[in-house]
Formats: sequence, C-alpha cells, structure tokens
Amino acid sequence: MPKKKPLILVTNDDGITAPGIRALIEVMNELGEVVVVAPDSPQSGMGHAITISDTLYCDPVTVKEDLPQKEYRCSGTPADCVKIATQEILHRKPDLCVSGINHGSNSSINVIYSGTMSAAVEAGIEGIPAIGFSLLDYSLTADFEPTKKFVKIITENVLENGLPKGVVLNVNLPKLKEKEIKGIKVCRQAKANWVEEFDKRTNPQGRDYYWLTGKFVSEDKGEDTDEWALANGFVSVVPVQFDLTAHHFIQDLNSWSFND
Amino acid sequence: MPKKKPLILVTNDDGITAPGIRALIEVMNELGEVVVVAPDSPQSGMGHAITISDTLYCDPVTVKEDLPQKEYRCSGTPADCVKIATQEILHRKPDLCVSGINHGSNSSINVIYSGTMSAAVEAGIEGIPAIGFSLLDYSLTADFEPTKKFVKIITENVLENGLPKGVVLNVNLPKLKEKEIKGIKVCRQAKANWVEEFDKRTNPQGRDYYWLTGKFVSEDKGEDTDEWALANGFVSVVPVQFDLTAHHFIQDLNSWSFND
Repeated sequence: MPKKKPLILVTNDDGITAPGIRALIEVMNELGEVVVVAPDSPQSGMGHAITISDTLYCDPVTVKEDLPQKEYRCSGTPADCVKIATQEILHRKPDLCVSGINHGSNSSINVIYSGTMSAAVEAGIEGIPAIGFSLLDYSLTADFEPTKKFVKIITENVLENGLPKGVVLNVNLPKLKEKEIKGIKVCRQAKANWVEEFDKRTNPQGRDYYWLTGKFVSEDKGEDTDEWALANGFVSVVPVQFDLTAHHFIQDLNSWSFND
Repeated sequence: MPKKKPLILVTNDDGITAPGIRALIEVMNELGEVVVVAPDSPQSGMGHAITISDTLYCDPVTVKEDLPQKEYRCSGTPADCVKIATQEILHRKPDLCVSGINHGSNSSINVIYSGTMSAAVEAGIEGIPAIGFSLLDYSLTADFEPTKKFVKIITENVLENGLPKGVVLNVNLPKLKEKEIKGIKVCRQAKANWVEEFDKRTNPQGRDYYWLTGKFVSEDKGEDTDEWALANGFVSVVPVQFDLTAHHFIQDLNSWSFND
C-alpha cells in the first residue's frame, strides 16, 4: 500500500445516484482519497461509446451532505467520464479507477456491451490501474452489503501489486449472502453469447417497432470460466486486455492470397 | 467461393445514405446477394452500444430506384442493426457481414470506440464471418473508388477461406490513389492512444460545457503494426478477437492474496 493516500476515481454506468456506486464509494473511502465523476443518468449497454458530436456537461454535485468525497455528474458516457475526470477534474493521473458496482452481471461476453467495463478499459488505456465491479442482481434494491468485503480485498491487492500495462480487471459478484460466498477465483471469460428475441409490436400510429430481448447461452463447460465460478458461489476476477489482435491467427492470415 | 451466391449483410455506422456504405454495397453486389440493414443516422463513436431501454424501428427503404439489394434503415446502433437483421429481416444466418466503409480511421486502439467494428464484432459473436472496412478520410466527399479493388480481394479471401471462430477482420485503407497503394498487409493493432484535450466553453445561460477533442499518439515503432502499414502506403488487415481475457496474466493473478 502506498504511504500517501491513493487518489481513487470512482465511476459507473447506472448513474451517480445508483445504490451500487454509493456502496463502492463507501469501500473506497476506507482506502484512499475519492473523487467521483459519474453519469447523470443510466448508461447501461453503452459499450465503449464516447460523445464526439455533442457537448458535455460536468458539474460538481452534492448527493448527500457531509460526505468525504468530491463528486461530479457528467452528461456523457462512462468512457467520457473517465476522460473528462483525468483531464479537467483531477488534473493528475489517479492511482486507481474503479467502476460500478453495476446492477447486473458483466461476466463472459457481456464485457463487450458493458458501460461499467468501458470506463475501466478507458482508464486502462490511459495507463491507470482499473477494476470494474458488477453484482449479479439487476434490482434497484439489490443488497450490496455482502459485496463490500470482496471489493475491498480485490482493490487492496491492486493498490499493492499494480496491474501490468494493458490489463484491467473485470470482477463479478454472485447474488449471495457474505457467508455463502466461497471466495475469489481468477478466471477466463466464458465463451457464451446472447440469442436475441425481438418482441415486435405496433405503435398507436400503426408503425411496427421492436424491443430487444434475448437469453444468455453458454455452452462453455470449462471450470476455469467466470460463468462457472459465479454459478458455484465464487467472486470471479477476469483480467481483461484491450489489445484485440487475434495474434494466433496472424500466421494463417499471412498465407492468404492478398497480393497475388 | 461457394457455388450458391453468398448472402451478404451490409451495415455501417455513418448511416445508410453515407457514400462509404454505397461504395461497399457496389462491391458486394459483384460477390453475392446483398441485404443492407444500417442505421438511419450517424452512429460514430458508439462503440459496442446496444439499445435496451428504448424501442427500435427497422423499416424497408428505397435509397435509389432499381438497385439489386434490399435495404432497411434501423433507428438503433450498428450492433442493433446486426442483431435485428439476423433475427427479424434475414431469418437465416448470412454467409458474411461487412461493415463500412467508414469515413475515418479505425486503426489501432480506435477499434474499441468504433461503431463500424462493433457491427463486425457483433456478427462474429453470432458466428458470422465479418469484416469492418474504414478509409483514412473523414470527409463526406472522400473518394472510395481506389478502395474497391482491395475491399473485393479481401472479401473474396474471406468467402473462400472462412474465418476461425472468435475472429473478425479490421481493415483500414490509406487515403491514396489506387496505383499508390502498395498492397495488403496483415498486421497487429498498434499500441497507441488518444490524449484528450477538452475545449471548455460557456453556454448562453452561463453554464460551462466541453467539447471532446484530442490527438492520437502512437509510440509503437513496430513495423508489424497497422499504423506502420497505413503510414507506408499499405492496406492494413488486423485479425480482431472478442475473448478479452488477458490469458498471459492469469498465472500471476493466481499468486495474489485474494483468499488468505
């Protein structure tokens, strides 16, 4: 642990007043100096969206009196929050960025769609150690108490050890009581995907429209995956990278007839 | 090349009327049966956003009379377009999905922010061979003629060879005349990032707001990167994966004090 209190940037994708980020702030206040820069409204499913054709607002806000942290609400996406925080609010690189605690899972392929993880990845791109936390409970009344112990242990480990360049952590927490949680398990991302089902309806003007729905299908039976860990009562920790190059396929691709 | 004409889904992130997608459709009409499902408005910088809290419209549209392809404009993001196309429009898995041609680069770390590539990745997740194409020219009047030859060669190769599960291609094309382009080069994603600069202004009501600007900084001197290829007159082809697990860090992470 650094001698000086670490500067911790907290953000999320459910919006600055969501219970999940309030729980995360509580834990972080035990570990460092906290600054919150979070969206002013829910941003779930925003992936790694950024705001390039519109203005961004970012204003100080008091969510509750007498809290130790400074807080700012931003009109942009989670990735925008990290960018504006490091450039305009903090004026120096934070020692850590944590995002969440998301209301709902970001395990497996959901890392791609996740606003929570896009904030962590954005921080990682900027060279800041970063962790995204998600609880497997979509409810606004989700109980975050059992998560706090594990959030603290994982964060302490990152503050202690750092993270290699190009890697951030994706942490998912099962919806269980603290004593039911079996521990923390390092995992790989399970191979799984959503099978979409569109709910087609007709609006009052007679025009068809759709709601995106679907079910999550994992056929990956590996016991080293995040899905397995969560289904078996563990907190899952997946190291996530943003070099997307499929290095294993480069050699094959070089044998193709591109320049004949 | 399959005997039967392949079914090719075309989408993009600049919107269905953008010159880039019109050029891409022209090339694809030489190679297969084309169905276009593309956003009704520009979606640049949307990353892998999906529409989960709002309705989606997706209507047949005639962009120009007497074209061979069927076209649909969708109110959602590029990833939404692919989902709705496969489930509601095509009623069968297409043989290929191509996205673009984007007006502007999606090389290096830009793959993360790119709506063009999110459509390709979404198709890849659904098991469809997919390619994202981008031209290094942001202009609406960009000249796509020189790109057509290379788009066709790369697409023919994918139709011929297929792509391994979990891999899609990210193709960037330099802003050059056809005879100036030196060929096609298989690359890795360059390690680079954006250094943000926020342009802070005050609105007529006296409230501060920001525009996100920034400059792209690559310190990766490797000659096997997409940035090098593009700077040296090549078309870059990077195989991209969506298993984001940083497998190389799992062993280290397992030595941390998570469960002591």
